Amino acid sequence: MFARGVYARRVEAFFAKVSHLGLGGAVLTTRASCAYFTGFEGAPAVLLARGAEPVVVVPRLEYTRAKKETAYGEVVAYSEYEVEAAPYENVRWKRRLWELIGELIAERGLEGEEVGAELSGVRAGLLKEVVKALGSEPKDVSREVEEMRGIKCKEEVGVMERAVKIAEEAMRRALDSLEKGVTELEVAAEIERVFRLRGADRAFEPIVAFGEDSAYPHAKPGSRELREGDLVVIDLGARLAHYCSDITRTLVFGRPSSKQARMVRAVLEAQRAAIEAVKSGTKARDVDRAAREVLRREGLSACFNHGVGHGLGIEVHEFPALNPASEDTLLTGMTVTIEPGVYVEGYGGVRIEDVVLVEEGGCRILSEFERIL
Amino acid sequence: MFARGVYARRVEAFFAKVSHLGLGGAVLTTRASCAYFTGFEGAPAVLLARGAEPVVVVPRLEYTRAKKETAYGEVVAYSEYEVEAAPYENVRWKRRLWELIGELIAERGLEGEEVGAELSGVRAGLLKEVVKALGSEPKDVSREVEEMRGIKCKEEVGVMERAVKIAEEAMRRALDSLEKGVTELEVAAEIERVFRLRGADRAFEPIVAFGEDSAYPHAKPGSRELREGDLVVIDLGARLAHYCSDITRTLVFGRPSSKQARMVRAVLEAQRAAIEAVKSGTKARDVDRAAREVLRREGLSACFNHGVGHGLGIEVHEFPALNPASEDTLLTGMTVTIEPGVYVEGYGGVRIEDVVLVEEGGCRILSEFERIL
Repeated sequence: MFARGVYARRVEAFFAKVSHLGLGGAVLTTRASCAYFTGFEGAPAVLLARGAEPVVVVPRLEYTRAKKETAYGEVVAYSEYEVEAAPYENVRWKRRLWELIGELIAERGLEGEEVGAELSGVRAGLLKEVVKALGSEPKDVSREVEEMRGIKCKEEVGVMERAVKIAEEAMRRALDSLEKGVTELEVAAEIERVFRLRGADRAFEPIVAFGEDSAYPHAKPGSRELREGDLVVIDLGARLAHYCSDITRTLVFGRPSSKQARMVRAVLEAQRAAIEAVKSGTKARDVDRAAREVLRREGLSACFNHGVGHGLGIEVHEFPALNPASEDTLLTGMTVTIEPGVYVEGYGGVRIEDVVLVEEGGCRILSEFERIL
Repeated sequence: MFARGVYARRVEAFFAKVSHLGLGGAVLTTRASCAYFTGFEGAPAVLLARGAEPVVVVPRLEYTRAKKETAYGEVVAYSEYEVEAAPYENVRWKRRLWELIGELIAERGLEGEEVGAELSGVRAGLLKEVVKALGSEPKDVSREVEEMRGIKCKEEVGVMERAVKIAEEAMRRALDSLEKGVTELEVAAEIERVFRLRGADRAFEPIVAFGEDSAYPHAKPGSRELREGDLVVIDLGARLAHYCSDITRTLVFGRPSSKQARMVRAVLEAQRAAIEAVKSGTKARDVDRAAREVLRREGLSACFNHGVGHGLGIEVHEFPALNPASEDTLLTGMTVTIEPGVYVEGYGGVRIEDVVLVEEGGCRILSEFERIL
């Protein structure tokens, strides 16, 4: 998707970042990291070796697609059984994933070297196979890979800006579709349609929540019909060329009650305070605190039941975390969401979310959709 | 979603099934299994205890939704930090997931007992926390839970039949939308819209692949426009009340070439042979072999690059596996897909897929959509 050189530089940067671990290689195991280093999203594993091209390891049925979509690296397939194959397939037969990885490590001259692994993508039940392939329990590089992916290059920011634009178009369409009696599912259908017609997919199942449903931060769209006076929370994001957007708006359908208006005003104010706190070098938890303090002054902090935001990139939720327990520090090039909310069970909720790019001394808001509706 | 008694019986059946392991409790860790035993899909863990209600463990922001959607079990939330909360929330503060599970085990009188865990849903990097919570590396119950979920009760079959009907309606709409110049993404949008308007979601991203794109078994819909003479593969499924459907149809847009017609006929014949081989007691690999032998006779077996099917239920791919290496045996009440395919890189592919319910002496095909298009 990006030029080959972008991926080659990432592999180089990875080995520089983990130089203290003394690794000759590393096995990536999450879809996001495999995409990040090769351009192909859909491999169960990628073997990185210092000074060499990655090896993308896929089950046989993914071989041709992986060959087409891999921007940097060669592709090797495995099959647990042996059957006939086409001459263009590069399949190793009667092997499980980690058996093939063990072989590739030997073939690439990494046998004497230490090979790390991204353990966040390995299921505990498979750890024995990993240990067998790598000779011992590998050093975990999950954190280092997350940190790398957390800081976006200008190419990534460019794609994310396009994904945000598509999300904004879907939000416009969703708002236009609000009328008495429309269901949450019907509005969700409109949102998903915009994504498709703009060449994207959804980054996550859109949240369209009316009235009391809006009190669930992770509501799923259902058959609830829109009624006069409902709070309406719409949380949506597009996925374009692997990268996600994620924005939320809240409005009252009809005339807001004073309680609704107070909730909306408080969340707007909390979001403004949090966005103002974002700059390179700031502790992520201090951004959360800025929002929480506004809500405390308004008597609503007990209704704010999640962190103020999260990193956004190939995954919808990635490094860094923005919550009261976070030890992460915001750095230039991070793209994070700022999404305070208040939720009252049986009544409704309010959440407002934008995507910001962390800069020196402040941040740039990537989403331009109006916040007061 | 089902009556409370359905879930209570499942918990009882689980402890009967694992009686040889001598467990007093077990921790479920996959979304599918948590849904299967409690009715709530969205918990990171559920603690089962013999003779007691399950405990659904969720992060704080999911507490109210989990309470509403849990059909069997009580809900306890955790938060890694402490802040203000609403009086109706049942949150344990300053705890990580597995710390809370460790506490619950002690509180439920399971401290002296052995507690197993579904390790297929635990990330390897978290295994140390699991061992700390449970006292030692737990016995893995992944296989036992998979086997239970593999055999559907009549309530489950009923929901899956409804999910199949919605899939068939979406397939009809997709076929109706095929016209020269339409894109794969536009057809995918039509499919997803039908799911929403029928109260469902997609079970997976629909595959709509034209011409050479149909040679990728896991193609993603893109901007490719439909042209006269294209092979068209459409693979779609709805998710309704947790349960998936999954069907595939292939046609030639316009007049089929003799090569295309031969591929389609061979796959139809292979599917028929495989479906005929399905009955309770049959080895899953023998169903795969039935299809592969037909394709071998037609000179196409080298183009059949995956297994003939998979179990279908709360997950799109679940137990059992139908491929040449499978050790699984088909049993009455299993719902499996039968989906042989042939793929020629740079040219195109054909796949035909239906859902069948395994019975004594045969099977019932749940999908009625015509196969010859």
